Amino acid sequence: MDRYEQVIELAKRRGFLWNSFELYGGTAGFYDYGPLGSTLKRRIEQIWREIYVIQEGFMEIECPTIGIEEVFIASGHVGGFSDPLCECKQCGEAFRADHLIKHIVEEADGLSNEELDSIIAQHNVKCPECGGEFGKTYEFNLMFKTQIGPGNGRKGYLRPETAQGMFVDFLRLARYYRDKLPFGATQIGKSYRNEISPRQGVIRLREFTQAEAEIFIDPRNKKHPNIQRFENTLLNLYSDEAQDMGESQIMTVKEAVSKGIIAHEFLAYQVALVNHFLQRVGISPDKLRFRQHRKDEMAHYAIDCWDAEILTERFGWVEVVGIADRTDYDLSAHANMSKTELSIYIEYEQPRMVEKFVIRPNMGKMGPVFKGKAKLIAEALKALPKEAFENDEIKVSVDGEIFIVPRDMVEFAHETIKVSGENIVPHVIEPSFGIDRIFYALLEHAYDEEVVSTKDSVEHNDEETRIVLRFKKEVSPVNVAVLPLLTRQELIEPSKEIANRLREKGLLVAYDDSGTIGRRYRRNDEIGTPYCVTIDYDTLKDGTVTIRDRDSMQQVRAEVATIEEVLYDMIYRDKKFETAGKPV
Amino acid sequence: MDRYEQVIELAKRRGFLWNSFELYGGTAGFYDYGPLGSTLKRRIEQIWREIYVIQEGFMEIECPTIGIEEVFIASGHVGGFSDPLCECKQCGEAFRADHLIKHIVEEADGLSNEELDSIIAQHNVKCPECGGEFGKTYEFNLMFKTQIGPGNGRKGYLRPETAQGMFVDFLRLARYYRDKLPFGATQIGKSYRNEISPRQGVIRLREFTQAEAEIFIDPRNKKHPNIQRFENTLLNLYSDEAQDMGESQIMTVKEAVSKGIIAHEFLAYQVALVNHFLQRVGISPDKLRFRQHRKDEMAHYAIDCWDAEILTERFGWVEVVGIADRTDYDLSAHANMSKTELSIYIEYEQPRMVEKFVIRPNMGKMGPVFKGKAKLIAEALKALPKEAFENDEIKVSVDGEIFIVPRDMVEFAHETIKVSGENIVPHVIEPSFGIDRIFYALLEHAYDEEVVSTKDSVEHNDEETRIVLRFKKEVSPVNVAVLPLLTRQELIEPSKEIANRLREKGLLVAYDDSGTIGRRYRRNDEIGTPYCVTIDYDTLKDGTVTIRDRDSMQQVRAEVATIEEVLYDMIYRDKKFETAGKPV
Repeated sequence: MDRYEQVIELAKRRGFLWNSFELYGGTAGFYDYGPLGSTLKRRIEQIWREIYVIQEGFMEIECPTIGIEEVFIASGHVGGFSDPLCECKQCGEAFRADHLIKHIVEEADGLSNEELDSIIAQHNVKCPECGGEFGKTYEFNLMFKTQIGPGNGRKGYLRPETAQGMFVDFLRLARYYRDKLPFGATQIGKSYRNEISPRQGVIRLREFTQAEAEIFIDPRNKKHPNIQRFENTLLNLYSDEAQDMGESQIMTVKEAVSKGIIAHEFLAYQVALVNHFLQRVGISPDKLRFRQHRKDEMAHYAIDCWDAEILTERFGWVEVVGIADRTDYDLSAHANMSKTELSIYIEYEQPRMVEKFVIRPNMGKMGPVFKGKAKLIAEALKALPKEAFENDEIKVSVDGEIFIVPRDMVEFAHETIKVSGENIVPHVIEPSFGIDRIFYALLEHAYDEEVVSTKDSVEHNDEETRIVLRFKKEVSPVNVAVLPLLTRQELIEPSKEIANRLREKGLLVAYDDSGTIGRRYRRNDEIGTPYCVTIDYDTLKDGTVTIRDRDSMQQVRAEVATIEEVLYDMIYRDKKFETAGKPV
Repeated sequence: MDRYEQVIELAKRRGFLWNSFELYGGTAGFYDYGPLGSTLKRRIEQIWREIYVIQEGFMEIECPTIGIEEVFIASGHVGGFSDPLCECKQCGEAFRADHLIKHIVEEADGLSNEELDSIIAQHNVKCPECGGEFGKTYEFNLMFKTQIGPGNGRKGYLRPETAQGMFVDFLRLARYYRDKLPFGATQIGKSYRNEISPRQGVIRLREFTQAEAEIFIDPRNKKHPNIQRFENTLLNLYSDEAQDMGESQIMTVKEAVSKGIIAHEFLAYQVALVNHFLQRVGISPDKLRFRQHRKDEMAHYAIDCWDAEILTERFGWVEVVGIADRTDYDLSAHANMSKTELSIYIEYEQPRMVEKFVIRPNMGKMGPVFKGKAKLIAEALKALPKEAFENDEIKVSVDGEIFIVPRDMVEFAHETIKVSGENIVPHVIEPSFGIDRIFYALLEHAYDEEVVSTKDSVEHNDEETRIVLRFKKEVSPVNVAVLPLLTRQELIEPSKEIANRLREKGLLVAYDDSGTIGRRYRRNDEIGTPYCVTIDYDTLKDGTVTIRDRDSMQQVRAEVATIEEVLYDMIYRDKKFETAGKPV
């Protein structure tokens, strides 16, 4: 068993994660989060909200997962969100053509379908399932399709990302933020990719959770007002240049900006914020790097892109977050498609005097010639650019009809006018998180096995390898286990009372009274519960309980009277375990 | 404008809610939650989790929104989740047939398609859009369909409810809870109904959020261990009988159970818990009732069903929660479909001695006759029921071949064996919440207009009608507004510092420095912000700020030093406003 298998085995057995629809044999690309998994995922999302929504002030919105066609035509997903598909002529099994030749060509990503076909033919690649021959490669669109309403209804797609919601809602958001840049909005929710044949477990899902922020900034000012917070933060950067060398470099945010490695301050702040978030939830800093998109892989409209990558044992470096400066691409695309201006009016600090070329049609001359159309023609003339007036006759179109206007019917002037601001299409900075991958990486990074021979393990004849999930305390799904030492009524009752008090405090409690105490400790180690509270006969006498620390397996004797505050403060407020009570 | 329009106008203008895809003209049945709406919705969900997940211990799971066909064949949705659809022959517009005749027949719900057609013909009902004639009524399945994977792929449906996830995962959940009844699991997430033509705004959505609990209980014991918590709680019950009278009755939970109005204690506890939740988030108790399903509307397998209904001005009583005892219907349906036993082994308190009919094939006689097949035939005989041995010759099938066995080759006996338990299919109690409807009802119940002429409104020439959303403090989307009295640097800086400290405490802060202070108060009244903190020149001198209370508009002067604790405790811990500082 490799680490992936160990982690997934534990995850299934203890209720973190399992294949969806197991009862019916399952379907690739779908996983269920069980009681512990869902809680862990929720805690990751909650910390994300704390950072992005509460601290940064990028308010959350919630748009439907079903989208209409116009949105995804504008975004380019209808046209370009596809993978090259290759079907076996014999058994009908479908494969990604670029995956079929991975052992032949190192960089199969950028190849055309014709190139893929010719490599498949040349190397005589056959169906891995049945040995059959392949048909021609074609593009398979990865959006799930559906239909809204009855009859011919309206085409619908399950969204491939949450981002489009923020773009489509741009005008509403701008109004909410009273047109003041920068502002941002976030969304946490399901996105969908109808993968051709997902084969990497939780790493490649057909339905997954994204957390995305779209931050709209003034394109003329990409400084960040709060950059000093991260200036001296060290980042593990695998820049375009470093990739040529094959080795990432650790440097401060300040250095990365001043050397031009990260394109600008605002983006650098976002990279540092992602770094902060990932470490806060529990990603090992030594298994985290930021890889810059290479010039040939970056989207044509983007200025700079960085992927947060996490090291896993089976899959190597896995992309879990993308952070990009997407310029005005998305807003302009939707503005074009919807024929609506998506911009912000920005007032200048001082009004500017601007010289302007002005056209003044001479109505006295035009009236007699153009009669009833004169006024419309005059309006049309005013809208023409300066160049149109270079010839003696000016062509102008009104309601599809072309009119020729002699130049002497028009007068020109240069006027100086006061301009107090202009409409600007903001640039978009987008950090986009794959929550499921972060979830898996957390499990893998938290997974630990160690041989124990503590006093209690020797006593209970339990000296063996223990599996521990060393989650950060605030992300552990179960906050506290409450364990009566023995299954006796006189211990069960006060135990349940303590459990209820902890629940009142908002802590997620696992009450467990079955099996030896040693076995119950192990069970809680396996699911990462940071603290176990044991109620015994001394509790009845002196009002104290044992608190056991997951990582050190040490125990203290603490007062029942303040147990909920003590535990809450240890989990959420960095209170030290040693101060919780007397060492045992 | 009726109240619905007033509420929706405010909701759109201030960023609670708007039609999805507005930029492209919108599509019926889809709404976006804006910055305030999404936050409000999140707070409702969070309180639901606190009650159901933390307090009740029904752990949350998360299953995909896309489901495979088997699941929905078992659940009955492929066969029966449909509405009668009627299309105009002229313009093609689709309608629900039962809605077309609502003005003619009071109870159009139970009518067959033939009956609907004949009423439409008889009353000459024409298309409301174009006056055209209607085609025949047919059943339109309300699940959104899609396809998983390429080629002929696999049929997929967007789930019409979250519940099926808990049923499909039953064995995993039973294992998590170590096979101890009762246990429960919950899910909050998107569900989908491809409505024929949704025309009731946020009340009838094609994509909506459900919160559901599936609680698995021992069918032989429907007592609730914690019933005393709610025994004396008053419920507004509109029972089957009360509906005959046309008036609901207020009675205690105890009375409702003892009189047999609610079928049993466990269900009564759940009704009371729903009542508790709805009032806690802010539903007006006098606009809340529980309506029992009438005998002819209840599903055939259900024992008892109650709907929580909320009174709204435009739509009357609207169903927002369903609470049902669904017996073993769902588990049995999935057990049949998957050919998997979905049950819990329950140990008896004492082993029972059970008499059993036992078959003992006489191998001495069978061997010579049946040779190599004798052993298989003997096994097959043992599996036959008692009745099969009534004739002289016994027919038995092995591998599809029929053998005739003379009765004297088999001996019979009655044995007494010790049985220590049995497999039981649990019954399911299901409270199912429509979060979007609760969200809308909260807005409507919180909406208030009043004419104000307080000192500050007179001073600022602002004596007029104010709109206030009187949310419960803990559900208000924005916790605190921080307002420098004037847009001056010396006030802005300490204001931002206070805002940051409040954010550190986890409070959602709106910082606002534009417009008169009176206008900023009104803005915050309109979005239900419970407290505004104003920083002025006295703040710089004596370290105090003004806190203004939304509902009373009264103000106190409080210390900056402890401002975050004071506000946190007022919002989440029932600290009284009067104790926050000196009255102004």
